[in-house]
Amino acid sequence: MSHAPADALSARHRNVRAACASRSLDALVITSLPNILYLTNFTGSSAIVVLTADRLRFITDFRYVTAVTAAIGTGSACPGLELITVDGSYDATLAAVLQSTGSTRVGFEAGNLTVARYDWLKATLGSADSGIALVATEGVVERARARKDDYELTTLRTAAAMLSRVVPGAIEEVRLGRTERDVAHAIDERLRREGFDRTAFDTIVAAGPNSALPHAHPGERRITENDLVVLDFGGVYDSYCVDLTRTVAVGKADARMREVYEAVLAAHDLAIDAVRPGVSRFTIDAAARDELDRRGFGEAFGHGTGHGLGIEVHESPRVGKRRAEEAGDDEIVEAGMVFTVEPGAYLPGWGGVRIEDDVVVTETGVERLTTAMTELIEK
Amino acid sequence: MSHAPADALSARHRNVRAACASRSLDALVITSLPNILYLTNFTGSSAIVVLTADRLRFITDFRYVTAVTAAIGTGSACPGLELITVDGSYDATLAAVLQSTGSTRVGFEAGNLTVARYDWLKATLGSADSGIALVATEGVVERARARKDDYELTTLRTAAAMLSRVVPGAIEEVRLGRTERDVAHAIDERLRREGFDRTAFDTIVAAGPNSALPHAHPGERRITENDLVVLDFGGVYDSYCVDLTRTVAVGKADARMREVYEAVLAAHDLAIDAVRPGVSRFTIDAAARDELDRRGFGEAFGHGTGHGLGIEVHESPRVGKRRAEEAGDDEIVEAGMVFTVEPGAYLPGWGGVRIEDDVVVTETGVERLTTAMTELIEK
Repeated sequence: MSHAPADALSARHRNVRAACASRSLDALVITSLPNILYLTNFTGSSAIVVLTADRLRFITDFRYVTAVTAAIGTGSACPGLELITVDGSYDATLAAVLQSTGSTRVGFEAGNLTVARYDWLKATLGSADSGIALVATEGVVERARARKDDYELTTLRTAAAMLSRVVPGAIEEVRLGRTERDVAHAIDERLRREGFDRTAFDTIVAAGPNSALPHAHPGERRITENDLVVLDFGGVYDSYCVDLTRTVAVGKADARMREVYEAVLAAHDLAIDAVRPGVSRFTIDAAARDELDRRGFGEAFGHGTGHGLGIEVHESPRVGKRRAEEAGDDEIVEAGMVFTVEPGAYLPGWGGVRIEDDVVVTETGVERLTTAMTELIEK
Repeated sequence: MSHAPADALSARHRNVRAACASRSLDALVITSLPNILYLTNFTGSSAIVVLTADRLRFITDFRYVTAVTAAIGTGSACPGLELITVDGSYDATLAAVLQSTGSTRVGFEAGNLTVARYDWLKATLGSADSGIALVATEGVVERARARKDDYELTTLRTAAAMLSRVVPGAIEEVRLGRTERDVAHAIDERLRREGFDRTAFDTIVAAGPNSALPHAHPGERRITENDLVVLDFGGVYDSYCVDLTRTVAVGKADARMREVYEAVLAAHDLAIDAVRPGVSRFTIDAAARDELDRRGFGEAFGHGTGHGLGIEVHESPRVGKRRAEEAGDDEIVEAGMVFTVEPGAYLPGWGGVRIEDDVVVTETGVERLTTAMTELIEK
């Protein structure tokens, strides 16, 4: 397993510290585990980071102390990490650490911290008369994460190439009479054999009418002649997620299947063509949506065109319709952003088609990371 | 896949409604997905439930509407569910629903809702002059979930029997020269073949010095003569999690290995013996902890003795030391509670032992759900 090199971590720390400085924060409390992994290479399930202008305090518990201590001095070590072992509870330890830092304006991750933890922390710091003001922040680290650095792009390219290599075998698993569940397990096994650490989400195999359910669970339905079968699967490689969907026709596709498939494929291709630095993510969504609309499948495409990929399988940027509550900021896609393009058309009772690839915004346009063929497979 | 029957769901609704009434709440907004699954059988990834005295409003998005609609009238249907499709965003839809209910005291799940969502909701409801007061609640549904009903116990007994059957094969996979990662994959494959939908968490295979890390990631280390190997794995069956650990000696165990193993096994057995309705969860923890202490391994046991199991792999009750911030309530274990008993001893640089089983509190004492043998295996 490889890890982000120390210089990449240091650059990430600098970016986040600059974002804190611009918000006049003395410290940022980071409770989101994907954000902690991004800043420290820590892959465990419990930790808190307190980042100040010159220190990175890392709070974790007994279960991880030996591993974190062992990493110090190795290639996967986080520069400047100061290990603090939980004493009592995480939040009590955090309160004590904050009181020791001398910080007065302390940012926290409002999109991660629950109301219960916030209320406890506020009451504890308040009763200690600490002079600390807790300041809600949103997306400080997530915004940095949206533009992948060179280490991340290398990892994602490797992972996407692996995922592309799994596609022919995954399609091979679609056989008459097999259950969706068996096909899903066979795909999962292929993902592992290819070298993925785990699946990025529960693999979707949705056959026949089930293919009209964008997030179907694979069940006991058996693959049947004239089924459309949606295969949506992804893997995690060195902590980074990739995600791909193909739709297969079992037997000869009829005219309706071809019509829907071609509409979705056209939307997929047009959305990818629309990607370049400086364009709005809403414009990329519209490229897919307008094409499906034009072909009469606008109503059948009820989800967004894509989502960012990285340490999480859903992260920024969201490529969808503009929501009422979204301000104009964070609208523009920039070089280094990685996301899926996955239009679909779902006709309840009949079936559905989705085609999904992962792309990265380059300095001049777009690069497809997943490269498996997108033509309709009939088998 | 089976689902909780309608009468079980109705009883759960009654319990939660009674808890709301005792808090003078007109409505409870449920955002925790495991809680939503518990109340509705919904297994998707996005939904909000608004429970009032006489209605259950279920908010979900396009991706799940067809599946939820199709379930209505079937055995897995949630009694009284009223489906509301997301319009714009979940939180905007929730705000509109709350305004339509006429509720004035609306509880929310402070342990789940983030500060960002709360702030948005509060501002939106406030600016609409809705007369709605948002009231923080903690553990309303979780407390109901801690005592399993008959459907849940049947499911957990089945799952635990399946997991116990996997143990001999899992131990069989520990072979000289294989990497931890390969052993973990082989165990995962056995879990799937046994009928689990997925693993309950990333399988732990920790060999030699890695066995001293309670939450090690399986890596490239190869199984070596004289290793202790900790195998910690679990599965999800019909949405319920079971979890088990065994530690194996490769080759003949030396005196130190036997000493540590016997200490942990004694702690495991004493903790299980301490389980009965009416006893404090801190007492169960102490039964394991005091025994390890008495044998000189108190410092080597840094985690809690166990955790509740059910829809989540970690839920109430937590069986551990009393924390400073914990009040006296929720201390007593009751019939129907299901949790792990998993003491361990970890000696950095040398290795570790953990032995874990799942138990249910019965009306008169305790029933072991996982039943695989616990004697030290040398192979």
